[in-house]
Amino acid sequence: MEVGQSTASANEGDMGFHNKNTVLTLFYCWGPSKPPMQMSTNEAVEWNAHMQTPVIFNHHEPLVVNESTITRVDLNAIESTRNAATNEERVLILTPLRDAAPFLPQYFDLLSALTYPHHLIDLGFLVGDSSDDTLAVLALELKRIQKSGDSLIKPFNSVIIVEKDFGASTSQTVEERHGFAAQAPRRKIMARARNYLLSAALKPEHSWVYWRDSDIKDSPAKIIEDFTAHNRDIIVPNVWFHRYKDGKDIEGRFDYNSWVDSDKARKLASTLDKDTIIVEGYKEFVTGRTYMAKMGDWRRNKDEELELDGIGGVNIIVKADVHRSGINFPAYAFENQAETEGFAKMAKRAGYEVIGLPNYVVWHVDTEEKPGNA
Amino acid sequence: MEVGQSTASANEGDMGFHNKNTVLTLFYCWGPSKPPMQMSTNEAVEWNAHMQTPVIFNHHEPLVVNESTITRVDLNAIESTRNAATNEERVLILTPLRDAAPFLPQYFDLLSALTYPHHLIDLGFLVGDSSDDTLAVLALELKRIQKSGDSLIKPFNSVIIVEKDFGASTSQTVEERHGFAAQAPRRKIMARARNYLLSAALKPEHSWVYWRDSDIKDSPAKIIEDFTAHNRDIIVPNVWFHRYKDGKDIEGRFDYNSWVDSDKARKLASTLDKDTIIVEGYKEFVTGRTYMAKMGDWRRNKDEELELDGIGGVNIIVKADVHRSGINFPAYAFENQAETEGFAKMAKRAGYEVIGLPNYVVWHVDTEEKPGNA
Repeated sequence: MEVGQSTASANEGDMGFHNKNTVLTLFYCWGPSKPPMQMSTNEAVEWNAHMQTPVIFNHHEPLVVNESTITRVDLNAIESTRNAATNEERVLILTPLRDAAPFLPQYFDLLSALTYPHHLIDLGFLVGDSSDDTLAVLALELKRIQKSGDSLIKPFNSVIIVEKDFGASTSQTVEERHGFAAQAPRRKIMARARNYLLSAALKPEHSWVYWRDSDIKDSPAKIIEDFTAHNRDIIVPNVWFHRYKDGKDIEGRFDYNSWVDSDKARKLASTLDKDTIIVEGYKEFVTGRTYMAKMGDWRRNKDEELELDGIGGVNIIVKADVHRSGINFPAYAFENQAETEGFAKMAKRAGYEVIGLPNYVVWHVDTEEKPGNA
Repeated sequence: MEVGQSTASANEGDMGFHNKNTVLTLFYCWGPSKPPMQMSTNEAVEWNAHMQTPVIFNHHEPLVVNESTITRVDLNAIESTRNAATNEERVLILTPLRDAAPFLPQYFDLLSALTYPHHLIDLGFLVGDSSDDTLAVLALELKRIQKSGDSLIKPFNSVIIVEKDFGASTSQTVEERHGFAAQAPRRKIMARARNYLLSAALKPEHSWVYWRDSDIKDSPAKIIEDFTAHNRDIIVPNVWFHRYKDGKDIEGRFDYNSWVDSDKARKLASTLDKDTIIVEGYKEFVTGRTYMAKMGDWRRNKDEELELDGIGGVNIIVKADVHRSGINFPAYAFENQAETEGFAKMAKRAGYEVIGLPNYVVWHVDTEEKPGNA
């Protein structure tokens, strides 16, 4: 490093130090002692590296950049912690809807009861491929809960409704819809729907994404606080359903997509074509996996954790940065799984935690129509 | 389907048809002839299915939903066609930046020269892990080109700057940075940076995403029109660099990440751990792949196509729906590839087209430092 001198009066044959009509600057020369035009790219970078100019965007004093077309976002400031509500962390609740009109009143009753501060919650819906009145019922329910000035229901911070049809057939019978052949295409469309919704609704301010299906019958009002307190990348509850037989609740097991993988399933996958998608609950694939649905008891410690390899989509809470890093719902065969099960596989491959809570039960509606449940 | 009758005077022992004091309604009963309270969920859906209520969001006449917190987006209306400019399709240009200050003036000179209508273009930058003055130089360049009222440079529609550090070491030497051991972690961080940028910048109105690196030396001003005219899901040019030896341009080949896969590479991958990432140009992996960089001639037909299995990231044009469907840059081993090469692998697995143009050359700066190029 060298010390240089610059004086405007150098040509006048004067030392310049004591002449008050001249401009004198003493400066340090950072980097090589050659003019900028002769520096290589690397030398120029080195030359600049010692000083980072502070930049203030769209601020009025001092004005540096003030064009209304330029915005700036600092994602370094977004955190997801175990004290989400205290730290005022923003939550995005996402719900894909298809022919879901009958479920929406119950859905919004449960949503309104959530104790997590509503002004920290944004809602996102994708409505597509519906032949019933989903969009109208949704609009009416939203109008009701978002009405300002109603002191009984606290409105949520914002709502976005995304409309997109993927060409899913709406004329399937119950048998067709639940038949083996329909599963892989159905899961791929569901995955695309989730990704479109995520792409349109996730904003830089969100710390958590809460995937919540419309057909939940009952869930604890404190579920967001309960789940974020675990401080895990991805977390799901156990999903069961109520059904009364002889005056007794059979506590039916609903979600067989949350599982711990098995050597048998891994061996099976290694024999399959890379485009084949394994689906649970059909005789075509015997995986020998351990299903969380068959474990657990809601009377026991709700915070007990189980590491999972596949998850279902009824109720997932995810740190937003997991999605921002690119982990989403494969609409193709990712290691022979798709949608929510593929999401778990992808997350594990990328090194994220996937956790299930066997004793924390969220109650699904009893679909009855699909045999094999319960 | 049955025809029912309802008359308020039924209890009066009068037929009601000719009594003008009674209310008479003739109606068709859609679905089962039972009261709504006794219908099952499926019957209720069937009953409602014939009539979808039209819903108008935030419109003033007729007012149906008019809460400022509720927004609606119709993604069915977004198309990506071969006549992008004519159809006024919106383009998002995305550029990740790290210690890129010296390249930015050239970058913006080329960007300003783009002939695609600037009011249809949004810009997105991610600035992270930089020790030089990238953010300040970026802000100054943007202030210059976005200044309204300057008739020489047409401003772009909008700009978003995302700041996010991923902890990439900024103190690596040239040898360390280009060493074999550094490649997989470096590609994973680059992938995360791209996905964060995509997540923050992609808006529902975009039809195309144009990934463009900062260190491009020269590219045709009509590149967006040229590429969208192919109407392909994903398309990349050949990437070379100028270097003059003995007064002659050697036309150095730069990007070895655009390739056609080989049986040898597929066999190699099947022997690797699922977490291993194959990188090109190192003796550790001999893949026998066909590199687009070694093919082509810019004097020949620029529109000749080549189907690729892996691509580089210097210049990619993608239909936005490919990203919305969830296809992005794996920050983990996706079929033993990561980042842009993993992006191509993922897109192919999901059934999208990945196309290279061997004769369409975009010129990269000559990095000189990495042996093996040229």
